[in-house]
Amino acid sequence: MARVMTVTLNPALDLAFALDELAPGAVNRSHHAELQAAGKGVNVARVLAGLGHEVIVGGFLGADNDAPFKRAFAQMGVTDAFLRLPGDTRINAKLAERSGRVTDINGPGIAVEAAAMQALIEIVEATLATHEVAALLVAGSLPPGLDVEGFGEFLARLKATGVPLWVDTSGAALTRAIAVAPQAVKPNELELADWAGNALENLEARLAATARLHAAGIEQSLLSAGADGVLWVNARGAWQARPPRLQAANTVGAGDTFVAGMLHGLLSGHDDERTLRFATALSAESVRHVGVGDHQASDFSTLLQQTQVARLYVESPDGALS
Amino acid sequence: MARVMTVTLNPALDLAFALDELAPGAVNRSHHAELQAAGKGVNVARVLAGLGHEVIVGGFLGADNDAPFKRAFAQMGVTDAFLRLPGDTRINAKLAERSGRVTDINGPGIAVEAAAMQALIEIVEATLATHEVAALLVAGSLPPGLDVEGFGEFLARLKATGVPLWVDTSGAALTRAIAVAPQAVKPNELELADWAGNALENLEARLAATARLHAAGIEQSLLSAGADGVLWVNARGAWQARPPRLQAANTVGAGDTFVAGMLHGLLSGHDDERTLRFATALSAESVRHVGVGDHQASDFSTLLQQTQVARLYVESPDGALS
Repeated sequence: MARVMTVTLNPALDLAFALDELAPGAVNRSHHAELQAAGKGVNVARVLAGLGHEVIVGGFLGADNDAPFKRAFAQMGVTDAFLRLPGDTRINAKLAERSGRVTDINGPGIAVEAAAMQALIEIVEATLATHEVAALLVAGSLPPGLDVEGFGEFLARLKATGVPLWVDTSGAALTRAIAVAPQAVKPNELELADWAGNALENLEARLAATARLHAAGIEQSLLSAGADGVLWVNARGAWQARPPRLQAANTVGAGDTFVAGMLHGLLSGHDDERTLRFATALSAESVRHVGVGDHQASDFSTLLQQTQVARLYVESPDGALS
Repeated sequence: MARVMTVTLNPALDLAFALDELAPGAVNRSHHAELQAAGKGVNVARVLAGLGHEVIVGGFLGADNDAPFKRAFAQMGVTDAFLRLPGDTRINAKLAERSGRVTDINGPGIAVEAAAMQALIEIVEATLATHEVAALLVAGSLPPGLDVEGFGEFLARLKATGVPLWVDTSGAALTRAIAVAPQAVKPNELELADWAGNALENLEARLAATARLHAAGIEQSLLSAGADGVLWVNARGAWQARPPRLQAANTVGAGDTFVAGMLHGLLSGHDDERTLRFATALSAESVRHVGVGDHQASDFSTLLQQTQVARLYVESPDGALS
């Protein structure tokens, strides 16, 4: 098993309210409310720790309401390297109605100043210098106060440590991250189309763009391709995975579970087909319930079998097939 | 100035999100979110402390998220006698749209067991025994685990201490409280009609019911009478107050401000007319903004002048006019 560090710059406490029906403008009484530590890097850490890896979690937390995080980290068995900032970590309310409809109310994150970014870089560098870390993941959105340019500089500093860097974010932050050429990114179709500069109408176009991403220096190029499942291009070739069809109850955490599954396979030395099958099946498992994927689900071997993984052939920019 | 203790059995953290418009079923991004210590007894304490009284606050708080309460108590300058229970104090989300519409999502409170009620009684009794407390207020709703009967027993124990007991609650808990005959209660029209057993169609009926409440042993009988303002019957007579008309921006805390204003006047030895005028004007001041009333508002003397206070004459049950 490997040691991994995940960094979450803009974590949140998820406050999930169970409602019969949301009545706007009225007083709604919730029969169940749960406050849970959240954030993409925290979710990935939860999956990796569950798979037996040693995980260090870092980023920014508000000092005044970190108790749910401390409880979660203790329960997950991960090492807490989060830098505390004065104030409260934002709370994202999720209003879940009996019908299945979910309304999200996302609060603004805690503002991060340059000095805090500098302090965080030093914490991460010191952690990497004193622990043998096999991969470093930066995940999630940017907090107020950190612009895309500052994020790019942060990633460049982390990349310079030589530890394989994975970045899972979205929008302009993702485009900026790609420019730093981390080991892996996982855009969705719109984001990759944005980067590629052309629409990705069919599988061929999507695969070509993923291959271009790989050619641009992203060793593990992953594309969340909606109905086409996942595309993956690396130095050894290209793959497509389609998850089994499951009743989706809650897709929050599915992407984080997938990233964790990919890290797990690659860090464990599994072959590409096994790595992608496992990550895709685990992600599918997660959508059946609240929370991240559970590889100990009783039917997990069935889910693995039902996951379709196919080798694809890419025409490389120089005309050769890989 | 006097020393007052307020007890809040089911406090909450108010989480106010500012939204442009609430879109059910979508991801709503809030440009401002604020987590604030709330609860009726806490609000009353805030007003009383601002008016120079020495306030002790008690009740139940979840141990795991009490930081916003500790900050608020320090800022208010009140003494924290809250009993901590394992877990989190509930969070009530308030979704405020630009249109002024507010949607409340109230979480279930922390469950209170018999042993915790006993421990709270002992804390309150010890506080009353060692501090000269001029009035004790029990305010707000009942937490899960405490039924109306248990609430009645709790109030009876507190009343037996001999310290003047005020109760500000609603529904069945209020009806049960009235049976204990505290020094003051403040039902609304529906609640008083429930207790009286007849509809309160006009001012005369409302006044008669308030006088009956007084005759039943409630020394300071207060009625929130909607458009008719406030009615007050005590041993010295009956009063009606009508607040100045103001643009109501936020009525949360208006009732708590009124109760605090009444306690302030009575504990300061002000005459009844002055007491009621002050409490009504302060409550009116509070609806213009988020939070409790501010007696230092620049136009507060104008609000006092615009508040109409009238002496009323009640036909007592034995036919005499008081």
